Amino acid sequence: MTPETRDRLTKVSTATLCTALFKRGLRHQMIQGVLPLNPGLPNMVGEAFTLRYMPAREDRNGIEVFQNRAHPQRKAVEECPPGAVMVIDSRKDARAASAGGILVARLMQRGVAGVVTDGGFRDSPDIARYAMPAYHSRPSAPTNLTLHEAIEINGPIGCGDAPVFPGDVVVGDAEGVVVIPAHLAEEIAAEATEMTVFEDFVQEKVLEGRSILGLYPPTDEHSRTDFAAWRTARGR
Amino acid sequence: MTPETRDRLTKVSTATLCTALFKRGLRHQMIQGVLPLNPGLPNMVGEAFTLRYMPAREDRNGIEVFQNRAHPQRKAVEECPPGAVMVIDSRKDARAASAGGILVARLMQRGVAGVVTDGGFRDSPDIARYAMPAYHSRPSAPTNLTLHEAIEINGPIGCGDAPVFPGDVVVGDAEGVVVIPAHLAEEIAAEATEMTVFEDFVQEKVLEGRSILGLYPPTDEHSRTDFAAWRTARGR
Amino acid sequence: MTPETRDRLTKVSTATLCTALFKRGLRHQMIQGVLPLNPGLPNMVGEAFTLRYMPAREDRNGIEVFQNRAHPQRKAVEECPPGAVMVIDSRKDARAASAGGILVARLMQRGVAGVVTDGGFRDSPDIARYAMPAYHSRPSAPTNLTLHEAIEINGPIGCGDAPVFPGDVVVGDAEGVVVIPAHLAEEIAAEATEMTVFEDFVQEKVLEGRSILGLYPPTDEHSRTDFAAWRTARGR
Amino acid sequence: MTPETRDRLTKVSTATLCTALFKRGLRHQMIQGVLPLNPGLPNMVGEAFTLRYMPAREDRNGIEVFQNRAHPQRKAVEECPPGAVMVIDSRKDARAASAGGILVARLMQRGVAGVVTDGGFRDSPDIARYAMPAYHSRPSAPTNLTLHEAIEINGPIGCGDAPVFPGDVVVGDAEGVVVIPAHLAEEIAAEATEMTVFEDFVQEKVLEGRSILGLYPPTDEHSRTDFAAWRTARGR
Amino acid sequence: MTPETRDRLTKVSTATLCTALFKRGLRHQMIQGVLPLNPGLPNMVGEAFTLRYMPAREDRNGIEVFQNRAHPQRKAVEECPPGAVMVIDSRKDARAASAGGILVARLMQRGVAGVVTDGGFRDSPDIARYAMPAYHSRPSAPTNLTLHEAIEINGPIGCGDAPVFPGDVVVGDAEGVVVIPAHLAEEIAAEATEMTVFEDFVQEKVLEGRSILGLYPPTDEHSRTDFAAWRTARGR
Amino acid sequence: MTPETRDRLTKVSTATLCTALFKRGLRHQMIQGVLPLNPGLPNMVGEAFTLRYMPAREDRNGIEVFQNRAHPQRKAVEECPPGAVMVIDSRKDARAASAGGILVARLMQRGVAGVVTDGGFRDSPDIARYAMPAYHSRPSAPTNLTLHEAIEINGPIGCGDAPVFPGDVVVGDAEGVVVIPAHLAEEIAAEATEMTVFEDFVQEKVLEGRSILGLYPPTDEHSRTDFAAWRTARGR
Repeated sequence: MTPETRDRLTKVSTATLCTALFKRGLRHQMIQGVLPLNPGLPNMVGEAFTLRYMPAREDRNGIEVFQNRAHPQRKAVEECPPGAVMVIDSRKDARAASAGGILVARLMQRGVAGVVTDGGFRDSPDIARYAMPAYHSRPSAPTNLTLHEAIEINGPIGCGDAPVFPGDVVVGDAEGVVVIPAHLAEEIAAEATEMTVFEDFVQEKVLEGRSILGLYPPTDEHSRTDFAAWRTARGR
Repeated sequence: MTPETRDRLTKVSTATLCTALFKRGLRHQMIQGVLPLNPGLPNMVGEAFTLRYMPAREDRNGIEVFQNRAHPQRKAVEECPPGAVMVIDSRKDARAASAGGILVARLMQRGVAGVVTDGGFRDSPDIARYAMPAYHSRPSAPTNLTLHEAIEINGPIGCGDAPVFPGDVVVGDAEGVVVIPAHLAEEIAAEATEMTVFEDFVQEKVLEGRSILGLYPPTDEHSRTDFAAWRTARGR
Repeated sequence: MTPETRDRLTKVSTATLCTALFKRGLRHQMIQGVLPLNPGLPNMVGEAFTLRYMPAREDRNGIEVFQNRAHPQRKAVEECPPGAVMVIDSRKDARAASAGGILVARLMQRGVAGVVTDGGFRDSPDIARYAMPAYHSRPSAPTNLTLHEAIEINGPIGCGDAPVFPGDVVVGDAEGVVVIPAHLAEEIAAEATEMTVFEDFVQEKVLEGRSILGLYPPTDEHSRTDFAAWRTARGR
Repeated sequence: MTPETRDRLTKVSTATLCTALFKRGLRHQMIQGVLPLNPGLPNMVGEAFTLRYMPAREDRNGIEVFQNRAHPQRKAVEECPPGAVMVIDSRKDARAASAGGILVARLMQRGVAGVVTDGGFRDSPDIARYAMPAYHSRPSAPTNLTLHEAIEINGPIGCGDAPVFPGDVVVGDAEGVVVIPAHLAEEIAAEATEMTVFEDFVQEKVLEGRSILGLYPPTDEHSRTDFAAWRTARGR
Repeated sequence: MTPETRDRLTKVSTATLCTALFKRGLRHQMIQGVLPLNPGLPNMVGEAFTLRYMPAREDRNGIEVFQNRAHPQRKAVEECPPGAVMVIDSRKDARAASAGGILVARLMQRGVAGVVTDGGFRDSPDIARYAMPAYHSRPSAPTNLTLHEAIEINGPIGCGDAPVFPGDVVVGDAEGVVVIPAHLAEEIAAEATEMTVFEDFVQEKVLEGRSILGLYPPTDEHSRTDFAAWRTARGR
Repeated sequence: MTPETRDRLTKVSTATLCTALFKRGLRHQMIQGVLPLNPGLPNMVGEAFTLRYMPAREDRNGIEVFQNRAHPQRKAVEECPPGAVMVIDSRKDARAASAGGILVARLMQRGVAGVVTDGGFRDSPDIARYAMPAYHSRPSAPTNLTLHEAIEINGPIGCGDAPVFPGDVVVGDAEGVVVIPAHLAEEIAAEATEMTVFEDFVQEKVLEGRSILGLYPPTDEHSRTDFAAWRTARGR
């Protein structure tokens, strides 16, 4: 992802990105059912670095496993690249935590762009105060060992019913998280940027009292000329 | 709905309305599973104007369909009467949006009283800032075309497992949305207003330390005389 | 529960308590799916006093049943001991209320430590302003009579898939509610207090930039010596 | 229940019983989501004898608990009266068994009329061969100790969202199980018997080619006279 | 639908039809979650004739409503054309019946090709013995009035998350039910017929021991020549 | 797995195996929610060979992908060892197929011991007639490409919420499927064999009229002596 693409993606919404993906036949890229713990932050943007959990077998998941420095959960936290987004496949099961405040703090401190699970985080009140975006389905206090064993780092996964490949571009806003296939990131970012300019124009006109018919989409000629003029005036 | 009924309904809670409906044998009038995006607003009150979605068939729901000014979703937004509440049957499926910020802005600008879906809205952070009440189950960024085809305007529908007929009176507060059959609106509003006076009295007494036994309901004679005195003193 | 145990439990998180329980083989003590209505309050701590609902049969649950002072719902509210937590088994069904603002106000006024249901409360905007912690799955305006009949006071129940026995120690924070078996309360409180000191140390070090490897858990010798020094310095 | 009522209930369907209950305002008496393991048997009819499970706490539910002859699950199996139906509240959770083949065999051998759980049975292939009706939601091999602790014998419970009081009359056919409040059993049995005669007549006429309009219900005069003649001819 | 198309559709599977639809970008045409009550019958084939239910409001759905000959449920049963398939939108709610044995018998007697609901049928043991295919999600004894009000005949609906328009071609086999858009029925029937010939060949070869690689799909030249020879030999 | 272990596992039930696992603290080894398509077959026994699906991205899952001989789904079918059980992680999503009749036929022809998915099979009526055991949650006609992309062969997975590692021993009977960790297979098989002898004795005695108290478990001395005698007499 180029710096320009990253920059553009911080300024568009997941809703607009979903529409650009829909136009290309991609209908399942939104991670279903996750919300931000800290919705006031700027957009989360980064390449996906993934962690996959499987159901925990009790004899492999005693509290002592974390004595092992190579435990995949801890290893993933130390290896996730700065600027990336850690995406965790928790099989949509939030009955036990995907991670907690200390690991999320470590990700933040290492410069990671954000963290997403389709399960839940523990220490969620702490995480909600951090400056790094985090998304989950609901708070979940029980330790991950209760139900989840970290089994694979940076392979292809599902998260909230969306397909996620390492390197895909992940964008989050106050509404949720969308996954853009790596090879489409640049063109989607460009298209969404253009769409956002037009939607800002439409939003303004609608709030001034104009009908959406002929304006959204701009099937009326004068909608297109008005937009051209507005755009020039705003320098966008 | 008379202006007096509308006014009364702005001052009672959905909880009280549900009890008044329960007394008449109506147990399913609460729209289950929706919450306000903007909970600080006054009550939403208006007659139901409905929109029904069916599952989207891909060949009928390309992005180009909105070029058609007669598309039911857009038509509904322009036709919903001022003072009405648009109620959308999204089959409780929030995996794609029921509508987005621009359409909701248009409804607001046209004087519509509020909007409810048993699915989700996109651009929900924008909608949360609007002055018109909106209710959904959760944010949902993907365009409605992904899963929903608007198929019927202002027919009878289900919304959140509640039956909704056009013209029913819809009331929303910070807790959710209730549907009052049109022919009962006046009497329910009157009864709920009376109930609210009594509940305010009870609430005050309970916070002063009185037991609920004999007070709520007022099976003790002195509860009834205390209430009469309180009511006179308060001029209610 | 001794005053010391109660005091300790106000200062630890449900996440830490879950880990201490997990070490003892107890994996299902978190009440799944409930959130606080008033998350800014201090921890809720108290012995469980339970109320069980069964499905309501219509002929037994008319509005007139509350004329009976001995109705178990009302009786429970008046009998729940000060300092206890009322835990309600609503069979995870929030389509009708477990209780409303007036009953919750009465509990608060009587000195009860908090109230939990795996269903929903009505008058939830009022309850959210009270100074007593309350937890539920979502707001629910319909009267409990619609679906729930209060049938048993202070027997063993399930709540959010957790087992709850009268007298168990119930702790809630901004993340949710955990149930500690009565006979373990003291040792769990003590252990969680120790764990919290160490986790505070780790959190601080991580935010200063230290890796979690060797620190959490402290498999490196210097992590242990650093902690000892930190602890002495902080007087904890 | 008189022998005549019991006899009548063996000859009517749960569908007809549900309609008779509906006419009296009882809408939730069908145990939702259970099916017979042995659908070829005659109707199951008997008074409810109940068993309630709560979520299992691990330290109370080791395999050794069955050494205790007073364990409520085993006790219930030995105490359930001949002719009664054992109804088990498993909180609609079939991830672990409610009971297995040996206990169900013992119930059968003791003359119990049938057994129902809103969870699942283990050894279900064996139970499917028994001559006593058994109903569950699906097979479930794990021992009940995994998730369920038997906690109360013969109290009021919920089963499949239906209210069940000890002594209620429970009827099962190939479609499912319905719960008739004890005080209504006689009149419901009588009414359902009458309804069944009429429905048999209608069924026969419909299969002969007659329209349902005017026949079902018999709003046409000739439908009523035809039925009277048919009834006389059949001696019913 | 031509007689030839109808005939072809009796000889292909819903699985093959789904693949033909998938090739055209139609991914949601299978009615999810329904099974045949009478799986031994030949394929069900017919044009969709629809019935839509909404949630029942108690004051509109007393037992007396069937006195009205124009009640939509009864009217639909008398109006559904011979050779058509009645498809019922029950909002995937099987807690009350969509229809019962008498109405289904009348449909059969009138020459209707089959009946589908995404809810459940009552009198399901009777229906299972009929010679007309019927599909539902599970048996459901309670009368439809408990939860469902028939509100619209032959409009566009959803059924099991599939879009259904009147006149669409509906095909059912022992696996379930698929909905073919009317304008595609002929070409889909033709293509599925061809696919079936090839799949029969593949199935035979696989059972004889051949690898699927190069055979399914026939990327090996000799697979194609073998198929040509086989087809000639079988006269298909 | 030794031949003796394999042989023993063909003669014990999944219920008995679950209890043996429970005694060792393993509570989640049953694959939840799957049933046999062909329940009359002998037990399925084999080492797990796994296939993992992720959510399908549309641009990677066109019908043409099967032209690729190295496609993981097809490759897995050709590589699964004779005597093994193919276990498919379909994320419990049966809205599209995990595999169909031709692939299952190929597995059978290759000597594979069985196949399990926590999704659904297409061509399920064909598969139900095969002599190789197959387990799924429900029939599902749509091609796997609709929702599932085969992404990994023979890694650790979850299936029906159970952890499955390649080489674990998988046993299926008419009730469902259980996963035995590889290192425990021999001892579990031996213990379950012993348990089965005793349960057969108990079953026989119960059907003869003996109480379960003191017999199951055999806390009475005479139960143990009776069993010893019975065992000798039967030569088991």
